[in-house]
Amino acid sequence: MPTYKAPVEDVLFLLNDVFHMERHNNLPGFADASPDVVEAVLSEAAKLCEEVLQPINRTGDIEGCARHDDGSVTTPKGFKEAYKQVVDGGWVGISAPAEYGGQGLPSTLTLIVNEFMCAANMAFAMYPGLTQGAIAALIAHAAEEHRQKYLPKMIAGTWTGTMNLTEPHCGTDLGLLRTKAVKQPDGSYKITGTKIFISAGEHDLAENVVHLVLARIEGAPAGTKGISLFVCPKFLVNDDGSLGAHNHVSCGSIEHKMGIHGNATCVMNYDGATAWLIGEENRGLAAMFVMMNEARLGVGLQGLALSEVAYQNAAAYTKERLQGRAIPPKFPDKPADPIIVHPDVRRTLLTIRAFNEAARALLIWTGLKADVAHRSADEKERQSAEDHMGLLTPVIKGVLTDTGFANTVLAQQMFGGHGYIAEHGMEQFVRDSRIAMLYEGANGIQALDLVGRKLGKDGGRAVMAFFNEVQGYLKERANDDAMNPYLKPLGQALAHLQQATMWFMQNAMAKPENGGAGATDYMHLFGLVTLGYMWCRMVEAARGKLAAGANGAEPSLNAKLVAGRFFMERMLPETASHLARIQAGAGSIMELPADAF
Amino acid sequence: MPTYKAPVEDVLFLLNDVFHMERHNNLPGFADASPDVVEAVLSEAAKLCEEVLQPINRTGDIEGCARHDDGSVTTPKGFKEAYKQVVDGGWVGISAPAEYGGQGLPSTLTLIVNEFMCAANMAFAMYPGLTQGAIAALIAHAAEEHRQKYLPKMIAGTWTGTMNLTEPHCGTDLGLLRTKAVKQPDGSYKITGTKIFISAGEHDLAENVVHLVLARIEGAPAGTKGISLFVCPKFLVNDDGSLGAHNHVSCGSIEHKMGIHGNATCVMNYDGATAWLIGEENRGLAAMFVMMNEARLGVGLQGLALSEVAYQNAAAYTKERLQGRAIPPKFPDKPADPIIVHPDVRRTLLTIRAFNEAARALLIWTGLKADVAHRSADEKERQSAEDHMGLLTPVIKGVLTDTGFANTVLAQQMFGGHGYIAEHGMEQFVRDSRIAMLYEGANGIQALDLVGRKLGKDGGRAVMAFFNEVQGYLKERANDDAMNPYLKPLGQALAHLQQATMWFMQNAMAKPENGGAGATDYMHLFGLVTLGYMWCRMVEAARGKLAAGANGAEPSLNAKLVAGRFFMERMLPETASHLARIQAGAGSIMELPADAF
Repeated sequence: MPTYKAPVEDVLFLLNDVFHMERHNNLPGFADASPDVVEAVLSEAAKLCEEVLQPINRTGDIEGCARHDDGSVTTPKGFKEAYKQVVDGGWVGISAPAEYGGQGLPSTLTLIVNEFMCAANMAFAMYPGLTQGAIAALIAHAAEEHRQKYLPKMIAGTWTGTMNLTEPHCGTDLGLLRTKAVKQPDGSYKITGTKIFISAGEHDLAENVVHLVLARIEGAPAGTKGISLFVCPKFLVNDDGSLGAHNHVSCGSIEHKMGIHGNATCVMNYDGATAWLIGEENRGLAAMFVMMNEARLGVGLQGLALSEVAYQNAAAYTKERLQGRAIPPKFPDKPADPIIVHPDVRRTLLTIRAFNEAARALLIWTGLKADVAHRSADEKERQSAEDHMGLLTPVIKGVLTDTGFANTVLAQQMFGGHGYIAEHGMEQFVRDSRIAMLYEGANGIQALDLVGRKLGKDGGRAVMAFFNEVQGYLKERANDDAMNPYLKPLGQALAHLQQATMWFMQNAMAKPENGGAGATDYMHLFGLVTLGYMWCRMVEAARGKLAAGANGAEPSLNAKLVAGRFFMERMLPETASHLARIQAGAGSIMELPADAF
Repeated sequence: MPTYKAPVEDVLFLLNDVFHMERHNNLPGFADASPDVVEAVLSEAAKLCEEVLQPINRTGDIEGCARHDDGSVTTPKGFKEAYKQVVDGGWVGISAPAEYGGQGLPSTLTLIVNEFMCAANMAFAMYPGLTQGAIAALIAHAAEEHRQKYLPKMIAGTWTGTMNLTEPHCGTDLGLLRTKAVKQPDGSYKITGTKIFISAGEHDLAENVVHLVLARIEGAPAGTKGISLFVCPKFLVNDDGSLGAHNHVSCGSIEHKMGIHGNATCVMNYDGATAWLIGEENRGLAAMFVMMNEARLGVGLQGLALSEVAYQNAAAYTKERLQGRAIPPKFPDKPADPIIVHPDVRRTLLTIRAFNEAARALLIWTGLKADVAHRSADEKERQSAEDHMGLLTPVIKGVLTDTGFANTVLAQQMFGGHGYIAEHGMEQFVRDSRIAMLYEGANGIQALDLVGRKLGKDGGRAVMAFFNEVQGYLKERANDDAMNPYLKPLGQALAHLQQATMWFMQNAMAKPENGGAGATDYMHLFGLVTLGYMWCRMVEAARGKLAAGANGAEPSLNAKLVAGRFFMERMLPETASHLARIQAGAGSIMELPADAF
């Protein structure tokens, strides 16, 4: 059975030593998040994840969710009790506004806690996770009346939320959606249609489920310009806040999936369900897109989370499993050496770990930007933070889930044939993490979003700011010999990224196919550069702490220097291949007729 | 539900136009395999796979195997009837010696038929596949008495075979194995011990199961030098060939696995089971290794097979699924364009396909070498073919299964969220193909075998011959401008491989850790060069046919030229990254103490 230990120490290093969270103390909620408070919050979260959520991860996978004839859904054994602890601890709303009952702490902390929860039990973590997404949408777009009605219960966790976008014939291309909304004399709407792939659409954890639904109002324009956003609760809510009648929305079936069996993925049937408009008519897609950045960060962190828990279990196994010998033997008194003596095993472990630590840094860096974007009083600061988020969100979603999944496969490989056997739990990490590459915009769409939308936005303001930041960082340290083994590879990788960007400017405007053909490579090239930048900043912080006297933290700080070097020597050089592929253009890709495939 | 069409046309192109199978007509069995016969055999195999095996693939996955209280095992519905058709068609023994009832056809044909079978139904194909492995071992090592007893029934398929190597505490490191054999006065042995991960260990398809078992004879030396090979039938066989008593071997349980649910992976308990020595005492591991090359080719082809069927279904889906628009729209009259209009989708499909076609060429090329190694009267020819097999077997096993698995993931990605849903069958390809990276020597072991054993063997004779062949090929065509876009990248990739080889010679002899640290990258670098060489040969053959008048085959021949160019432009450049990683050495990998992981 797998185990999990939340990486609290690593997170504190990032918050305190790398990103200096205290510099944001002018933002609302940050002054309350002193280092002591943060450590206490994270330790509590770690305990919940390690002791409550992780132990029901594999049983949840085996049992799965069950739909009954009346449309109700039962979650696996233990989920209900665990969810009660999430509610009792106030975990859903730690970053939500105090006026609706939240604790108002930085949203970065929610991001971190969500990493822990997903690593411990991804299928479970999606129930509160989707609620947080729905909360964000209601805060951003709902009228005060609706906020008052739904937010306090959702922030408390006694009600959960969902997002209803996909229909059988449309996922990526929401312009095709058919679900209809008909306006009623009282201002409400009746919604009719079928939504699929609705995570946490129906379950037994909460008293009510608040669905956010995209639908087309009768007579609205075709395509994406005729889509509106609605709130549609499972149980109608009376004016005094008590629950009324069951709405005409129900779970028609639950999907048989590759993984995340503990989360109910529902077909939801809307049969004249009563709903209320959120935001403006026909502006539903724009409303959804505003919250998309955060939702996609949340999916990116799932990639990291599964990679982290898979790493921990693989590392432990390689220290226990005796098989073969080092040259010379490491433990001649034992029947064989533990397999961690073998370079290929260590190479694999370091490949996972050098990603995990940099990916966590990237998430926290971007999480802090999200806090600035939402909480700063300085418009320029907000704009710059929003630019950062817009640019890096597709990178984080696409790269962290692609690589996170690949890492669960690498970790499983460390178990040899035992990795294929369900009881070790490694194959569940592979199956669970696989979904993150597909939902919330398949990763090919992330790459297109980056290349087709984000690069050129506002005259390239965001990407130029990113280049300037990294270039400035390198320039300031140009004479730091000790940092040179880290800075030089980053400089090379940045040059590749800039060449690729230039190539798109010269070749993709006239011929967009050249952009599409290079998009996925560009996303991964961008990811490598950002992760390399994170490594430089972590190494620099670790060196600073070591120089100042590490107080017993020497081993973990030294490990940062080594993992960082591994990243520079063995992972970052991949940027050259990405550049070569991008510059190959769309020629051979577009040449064949469709029926030749 | 997925479909499958066996790539008969592609195989015939390889056999007839690329590798000129008829040039081997001096070998036993080849003269019987005229182009007409081969086409007829492959068409029959295709029919069996497409119409009988593929339709029970997904149902077999859902139902799995069941073990009953008496230790018997039931395979999924339809397997028994399908297996009867395999037996009736004589498919197990098409390449087996005629003297034991086989058809004596080239073993290359068995390799090809096995690709079809695995693509159609991998879990099913393992039952006859393992029997073929056991047949090869008995032919190579058993006394005539045992051959007469077991081979005719196994070649007919009425009895199946297994390989019993792994024990709970030892897989890779067979020197640790504990299963005991005690000699009896009549010359037989009693075997006692537990074997795990025994594919097809117990089932209801055949009248008898013939286990080949590695065990240690009482008093034998410790380690790998004290291991012997035994034959141990489930039912003892009387002198007249009829079945006697149930031997003391039974299935203790079947594993719950990530995939290949239709194949019974058994824990086999030997409790004083009667067995007979095969080959010499204490030479069991050597005997097993002789057949390892072929078994590993058989696993490599599973990687290709799953990649092929996943490609076919992904390509079909991308032509049907309407979502988004090309610029300008391709089908303005439809609600959206099929997603194959998007460059990123085509890039993904071509990535899979450019691998599949070259991997198939590599398998057939090596299959023909296996036939030469076993059937040629010319000792030098045999030696050179054996060199080729020894060198390329770890490459084929490691690269084809790593890439084959990665390709099933890419193919699944083309379905978006639908790829995660079981009914589409794409996630089964991912789960099924995953095992091939783990069993028959995990891929890290393949890489070590290549770098640590095969490179330096016989003074580097095999690798020098390979370099000479590719270099000679390039040199002969140095002035062929039309081939230049293919030859130049191959030359560059070969130079990378040679630099990596040289680096090992200079850096890994004194410090073996440098070899281990670069082994996996070297294996993949080697794989890319061989696949690139295959592409050159295929492109040249296709150009020759086009010039001679293609008789309606123009579209598929042109597609070869395009897919080959895609491979050269977008896949082969990866050799540079592999070289950079190899040259980084073991430094950062070996620096951390084990407890830092």
